[in-house]
Amino acid sequence: MIHPVILCGGSGTRLWPLSRKDFPKQFTRLLGDESLFQACARRFTGDEFAAPLVLSAADFRFMALEQLGDLGIDTATVMLEPAPRNTAPAVLAAALHLEAQGAGDDLMLVAPSDHVIRDVPAFLAAVAMGEAAARDGALVTFGIRPDRAETGYGYLELADAAACAAAHAAPVARFVEKPDADRAQAMLAAGRFLWNAGIFLFRVRNIVEAFEAHAPAMVAPCRAAVAGAQPDLGFLRLDAEAWADMPEDSIDYAIMERADRVAAVPLACGWSDLGAWDAVWREMGPDAAGMAQSGDVTQIGCADTLLRSEEDGPRLVGVNLRGIAAIAMRDAVLVADMTDLQAVRAAVAAMKAAGVREAETLPRTYRPWGWYETLALDDRFQVKQIMVPPGRKLSLQSHHHRSEHWIVVKGTATVTVDDAVTLVSENQSVYIPLGATHRLENPGKVDLHLIEVQTGAYLGEDDIVRYEDIYNRA
Amino acid sequence: MIHPVILCGGSGTRLWPLSRKDFPKQFTRLLGDESLFQACARRFTGDEFAAPLVLSAADFRFMALEQLGDLGIDTATVMLEPAPRNTAPAVLAAALHLEAQGAGDDLMLVAPSDHVIRDVPAFLAAVAMGEAAARDGALVTFGIRPDRAETGYGYLELADAAACAAAHAAPVARFVEKPDADRAQAMLAAGRFLWNAGIFLFRVRNIVEAFEAHAPAMVAPCRAAVAGAQPDLGFLRLDAEAWADMPEDSIDYAIMERADRVAAVPLACGWSDLGAWDAVWREMGPDAAGMAQSGDVTQIGCADTLLRSEEDGPRLVGVNLRGIAAIAMRDAVLVADMTDLQAVRAAVAAMKAAGVREAETLPRTYRPWGWYETLALDDRFQVKQIMVPPGRKLSLQSHHHRSEHWIVVKGTATVTVDDAVTLVSENQSVYIPLGATHRLENPGKVDLHLIEVQTGAYLGEDDIVRYEDIYNRA
Repeated sequence: MIHPVILCGGSGTRLWPLSRKDFPKQFTRLLGDESLFQACARRFTGDEFAAPLVLSAADFRFMALEQLGDLGIDTATVMLEPAPRNTAPAVLAAALHLEAQGAGDDLMLVAPSDHVIRDVPAFLAAVAMGEAAARDGALVTFGIRPDRAETGYGYLELADAAACAAAHAAPVARFVEKPDADRAQAMLAAGRFLWNAGIFLFRVRNIVEAFEAHAPAMVAPCRAAVAGAQPDLGFLRLDAEAWADMPEDSIDYAIMERADRVAAVPLACGWSDLGAWDAVWREMGPDAAGMAQSGDVTQIGCADTLLRSEEDGPRLVGVNLRGIAAIAMRDAVLVADMTDLQAVRAAVAAMKAAGVREAETLPRTYRPWGWYETLALDDRFQVKQIMVPPGRKLSLQSHHHRSEHWIVVKGTATVTVDDAVTLVSENQSVYIPLGATHRLENPGKVDLHLIEVQTGAYLGEDDIVRYEDIYNRA
Repeated sequence: MIHPVILCGGSGTRLWPLSRKDFPKQFTRLLGDESLFQACARRFTGDEFAAPLVLSAADFRFMALEQLGDLGIDTATVMLEPAPRNTAPAVLAAALHLEAQGAGDDLMLVAPSDHVIRDVPAFLAAVAMGEAAARDGALVTFGIRPDRAETGYGYLELADAAACAAAHAAPVARFVEKPDADRAQAMLAAGRFLWNAGIFLFRVRNIVEAFEAHAPAMVAPCRAAVAGAQPDLGFLRLDAEAWADMPEDSIDYAIMERADRVAAVPLACGWSDLGAWDAVWREMGPDAAGMAQSGDVTQIGCADTLLRSEEDGPRLVGVNLRGIAAIAMRDAVLVADMTDLQAVRAAVAAMKAAGVREAETLPRTYRPWGWYETLALDDRFQVKQIMVPPGRKLSLQSHHHRSEHWIVVKGTATVTVDDAVTLVSENQSVYIPLGATHRLENPGKVDLHLIEVQTGAYLGEDDIVRYEDIYNRA
């Protein structure tokens, strides 16, 4: 049995505006109908795999669970990191958890959830090829055979080109940092270099030993965080106090570059880390003119250009563009030259520093009980659309400064207003006077959609008194 | 007295997405807080001018009246062309109307409403300089002294450079069509060419005579259309049947290029016809890096670029762009290379052919009684925001397939539902059952804002039975 360990705590900004801190890349449907996280989880549903262990952040816990639920995966353990510490602590926490479960001799497969793999059978075959070396005690990494002089990836150096072409694990001679263009060209020509895909296979016991040898400072706080982990509504929360002492580092720096027995399985499986919009352009399969487009897009005279209008996004029109990436969403639009897309990160940082909401937040806000979205906002009123899946309910609450009209437009709601509990069905409305204690709940079998019209002198989210919250929020 | 004749029936598409068929350029706030039409009307409020005569289309009539009202101009005559026939018929209709009013010996000043004039005193001084020639029987045009080899304008040729530098009217030797780049460069160097700004001053009687001489086919239908014009809610509707026979032509082609006594007053007044986004970029006053931007915009590393996010538009982020125009609105975004912006028109035509709503229509729909905007649209429900200015009312109506919840969020409404008439004030709601006859009216002194939540199996605008309509619609 192999235990899949899915890393999805990251929140990259280079794919802004689609990927934001509050809804990062791995949960978006960047390519196709499934999210990258879902596609990753689906890869590990074969008989050779145990139930997945998902490492995530508290902010994303319901999103992760919901996306797994949509796939019918209900056996996953979702472990929550109290704070991001890069990949090394996440891998160690997963290993120590598995060890505590008595799986110390089992294999674990560490996989980032925000990459794309086109050829899943080829990937799974490579995993199978790596098993023998991993069972023999090696730390196995997977190396992608390069097809261009990419400067955005780190590289693995093997003994020779034959090792890179082989169908089995070979010792890694050296890890190479992201190169400049000349160096990347030289490595491509040399033939003995692979891209470091950040996917690893090892025995649980061996990686714990490797941490003890090469990153001993991580071991004690991580053991304490795992030992003190608390189950919470189906999640496993690592102990925050112990986690606070955890150093931050990547698994590459902390372990792989230092360990003695590191082997690589060469791999050609249509892999990309989708690190920036040019990688997305490439993965979308540009046509003969170099055009890749999706959504409500019109173009005239464009070439070598990416035009995307995301779901519910505006009509996007490109005219005579060359080498441009334009991504349009309802609340934010990026237009960037494709030759230096790393600068997108700087633009997001600049917006964050300036307090621009769209830097990190989407119009739709996800909560444990569903989501809401502001449709109109004025100084004296606000209109929201609210969605509550079957069985969920909002906290019992009241507001000091606003009254609310609720109109059910789909599904059925149980509405509590002070002492009265009523069933409100489609095309019915209910009024929540200022100060009234109230709660919204979906008792039905289909999603509840509700339009909320607020009026009042102050409409901030912080005008809320919570009396009872089944999601353990403050 | 000079009679200003303001032409605002056009609906250019080269400034899409801001300018659309349903809300064209002249009514937009392209530069500053006033619309171009308002800025044009304001130019003619001095004592030397009579009340303006506005030539417009039926679709824009309430918009024109409302924008004039905002300026406190309530003496304008708004004459409605039953169908667009370019500028010559509009000028002739204005002249014949003025003649019928007994103003045949007066001067009329024809001005397009979608241009910008920065230096209004210089412009008015030039008008004053043209008066003597116009009173003497000349057809006076105004020519802009060129400061670049512009290929987007037609030119006027005068006798020599001295005439172009003079402060009085001089005979026009020839009209020149929009040139290619070499020809434009040659004309700039020659010094005896001016840009044709499409602004004209003449005696009413003289232009009517010129039409009789050079475009006689227009005269009879136009006389009939003016004679049969019907007042309608404060507008003057030209007779549609007579107008149907009207040939289409521009005033330049039909008259000015053929007339004998045409004189030009040279002019330097910060004029632009704002013909495409590069002209807007220029008028916005780009900084040393060539950047012009407005609205919710963030940029890193851009140069020679226009970045605009219009009112209520998304956050627009530009990264490393060169020579790009990006204009973002809530429902539509244009990203275009600035070297060939004429292609924007082709893109709009392509969208129109494909039935793309955003080609011609804004999210906000203007009606005689105010406006509405769809906030959310699903298969079974729709949420609209509705605004009704004081004193206006919607038609008495009913729907076969939907019921409506109305929540007043600002102002006060008089609501009729079947036989009941009630006053609904802020934070109150009313329910309109399917099939009920209903009417909405603003009896108050401030704008009424209402949220309408529709539910039903069919939500199209055509599910409406109108029983009574004060705006004379079908």
